[in-house]
Amino acid sequence: MSELIAKLRAALGDAQVLTEGDLGAWEQDWRRRSRGKALAVVRPGSTAEVAAVVRLCAAAGTAIVPQGGNTGLVVGGIPDASGTQVLLSLGRMNRVRAIDPANLTITAEAGCVLQSVQQAAQAAGFLFPLSLGSEGSCTLGGNLGTNAGGTQVLRYGNARELCLGLEVVTPQGEVWDGLSGLRKDNTGYDLRDLFVGSEGTLGVITAATMKLFPQPAASLTAWAAVPDMESAVALLGLAHRGLGASLTGFEVMGRFSLSLVRKHFPQLRVPFADSSPFGVLLECSDHESEAHARAQFERLLERALEDGCATDAVVAESLAQAAELWHVRESITLAQAQEGLNIKHDISIPVSSIPAFCRSAEERLLRAIPGVRLVNFGHLGDGNLHFNVQAPAGADGPAFLREWEDPVNTLVYDTVQEFGGSISAEHGVGSLKVDKLPHHKSPVALGLMRAIKQALDPQGLMNPGRVLHP
Amino acid sequence: MSELIAKLRAALGDAQVLTEGDLGAWEQDWRRRSRGKALAVVRPGSTAEVAAVVRLCAAAGTAIVPQGGNTGLVVGGIPDASGTQVLLSLGRMNRVRAIDPANLTITAEAGCVLQSVQQAAQAAGFLFPLSLGSEGSCTLGGNLGTNAGGTQVLRYGNARELCLGLEVVTPQGEVWDGLSGLRKDNTGYDLRDLFVGSEGTLGVITAATMKLFPQPAASLTAWAAVPDMESAVALLGLAHRGLGASLTGFEVMGRFSLSLVRKHFPQLRVPFADSSPFGVLLECSDHESEAHARAQFERLLERALEDGCATDAVVAESLAQAAELWHVRESITLAQAQEGLNIKHDISIPVSSIPAFCRSAEERLLRAIPGVRLVNFGHLGDGNLHFNVQAPAGADGPAFLREWEDPVNTLVYDTVQEFGGSISAEHGVGSLKVDKLPHHKSPVALGLMRAIKQALDPQGLMNPGRVLHP
Repeated sequence: MSELIAKLRAALGDAQVLTEGDLGAWEQDWRRRSRGKALAVVRPGSTAEVAAVVRLCAAAGTAIVPQGGNTGLVVGGIPDASGTQVLLSLGRMNRVRAIDPANLTITAEAGCVLQSVQQAAQAAGFLFPLSLGSEGSCTLGGNLGTNAGGTQVLRYGNARELCLGLEVVTPQGEVWDGLSGLRKDNTGYDLRDLFVGSEGTLGVITAATMKLFPQPAASLTAWAAVPDMESAVALLGLAHRGLGASLTGFEVMGRFSLSLVRKHFPQLRVPFADSSPFGVLLECSDHESEAHARAQFERLLERALEDGCATDAVVAESLAQAAELWHVRESITLAQAQEGLNIKHDISIPVSSIPAFCRSAEERLLRAIPGVRLVNFGHLGDGNLHFNVQAPAGADGPAFLREWEDPVNTLVYDTVQEFGGSISAEHGVGSLKVDKLPHHKSPVALGLMRAIKQALDPQGLMNPGRVLHP
Repeated sequence: MSELIAKLRAALGDAQVLTEGDLGAWEQDWRRRSRGKALAVVRPGSTAEVAAVVRLCAAAGTAIVPQGGNTGLVVGGIPDASGTQVLLSLGRMNRVRAIDPANLTITAEAGCVLQSVQQAAQAAGFLFPLSLGSEGSCTLGGNLGTNAGGTQVLRYGNARELCLGLEVVTPQGEVWDGLSGLRKDNTGYDLRDLFVGSEGTLGVITAATMKLFPQPAASLTAWAAVPDMESAVALLGLAHRGLGASLTGFEVMGRFSLSLVRKHFPQLRVPFADSSPFGVLLECSDHESEAHARAQFERLLERALEDGCATDAVVAESLAQAAELWHVRESITLAQAQEGLNIKHDISIPVSSIPAFCRSAEERLLRAIPGVRLVNFGHLGDGNLHFNVQAPAGADGPAFLREWEDPVNTLVYDTVQEFGGSISAEHGVGSLKVDKLPHHKSPVALGLMRAIKQALDPQGLMNPGRVLHP
């Protein structure tokens, strides 16, 4: 092993091959579910250096775990505990390589922090719409490796749909330059989308060409009080018809989720908090003007009140008010953490089945665990709920988790499957869900996935144990 | 072989296994470039029957060529001349299985004619935006197998971006039910997008779940006279900023293309035909009202006239006028056929490089073939040109083709590569471009493609010789 480290040092320089000191920033996962031990943390500064690292590891038969901002939620980017895996950090590859205004594209390296890509786009007069909670730390490469979602998927799609081309280092250490920036290219299999979402198990994404959009002239945010999930779905339909592509956000939040925000962040104002089983946050982006957006929004909300799918509604009067509404939505994650440990899910269901799914899953949970509380919120426009299960009031969090994590996961995932959903909507599989996949994914699909993994990474050295068991 | 045919007859019924009579409808390609000879034409009526056919063929070691509407332009869907391949027609699988209004999805079988999918969506109050010249004959399965493009890609994407899930029969005759209808699903590799665009070489698509959109309240069409390709690109930028997602079409047509329409279809009125080197056809779809769309369009075109990127412009006053403008655009294909044989290309280039590419390619062509004429038109919004090369006036068409087809292809494709483009934007590879691919695609990409083909279809029986050489 010391021979490999010596070769890595020769290739990258001593300073970029870390083996001593506290490597916790790379070895500990974001949610503190697990801590690994790396043989070394290597920090290449260029695509050629990534390729060199991969070739050296391949020759030594050493596994590689690629890592971006280490903000993943499914333990997919840290080494295992064996001390035999090389942690490949892309953090130093953080250049925006090009912005092409007429082609509406930005080409950036994998280690670029998402927010810096957004800012580079904005500085050039464009919108890069991928947006998620960890955008100040997560990286473009991680976003693509996990096909990240977030709050703008409804209008702009997941990371996959925003990507026009990739540069990838293969498990053999070859470089595929697929940074085309083309919107149409039918010259063979879709390698791009195979690497996107493969969680580093088929190769290392080193750069990407992403779509840009014109900046909207105005964005407005509204909040609607909604009597039940059926009404939230009806409101979504109205919003699609009334706003078309101007509808850029549609988030739903259950009453208990919002009560946690009020309890733990009393300085935040939660609209209609007591009166309504669900809150819906809507965002409308307009290429014309704020006045036009407001007129459109008001017409939609009036119609929703008439139809009864909303019982009350408010449009933010200023950017500050809009930010405050979004802040309520984004504080749910922290508020539930303050309340104690819970059992998290990241599921998707066809939008039309969400009301029936929620009823069914809630009934079953309450039957199994009287008094259990649901932190139910998410991106309803994408059919994506974070359907989290919180211990009954006053219960001991760690004991609840020990006793209930497995049975609750089984109950929720079985119900998801019954309604034709997915057990991982936007977070990926990582290590955390790799055992669950065979129960919830078709054997034919898993067989195809294994065949592809074996074909592209026959040594099984790329992020082993993630997505698929070795 | 008669043993296989007997088994196919037993599985499908005699009437669905054709070996006698004129099979030209399945054996002759659309552009009449090639005619093959099938061992049999089989017409399964269900996914289970498709799977049975594939298993029987796999056991016999017999190759399968899947076919939809047989409207492909690259000879990808007919059997070879050997008389040993089974032609698998999906035409009888033509049911719309479900429309889910709240989920905005339609699930339809592969043999559904594209226009019937559009009509089913419309009858339910929705838009299915995939639209191309052959929509009255081509099928959804063929659209997905070749990742079809068309005139609405700018706003809604290619067939790939419109697809949420697939049902596929694998080369082993297993059925993968991936008809999820989910907008977010990160449970493993993106098998969907691997099958989309694989031209039947990795399996047979039997059904798909596709995105629906709200019907726009109004669609308007405009025509602008444009002084040069730089101005067309500038107008595209203005239209993106001014119309946002309401911009649903942006087609460019060179003067010679339009002169052929005037010559061969004198009853059609071509706006600004004499005065302008290029015409641009714009479409704006509005979720609000026709009056709003018209105001937006007029503001945009006024700005374009001020900026000088358009020299004249007209907005269609009625649906009939709009249809007439589109008819001019769509008549270019027929008009060039009337003029005589030409050498067709379907290329894409980053939008920003299109003016320089066009200048360079035209210069080189004129140097090589004095008097050669360019039928240059296409979907500028997607960077996709049909850059067709017509013999000099009065030249003998067939002789021109014999002498020049290869060198012209080489010249155009080399120039495409120089400008970072693709030699097949929306038509695919088929048999027609399979020899060209190794010269214009990275060896790393081709190696990955071969590894995937070998992994999924180790017997090499699925549409052999298409996309990749065996």
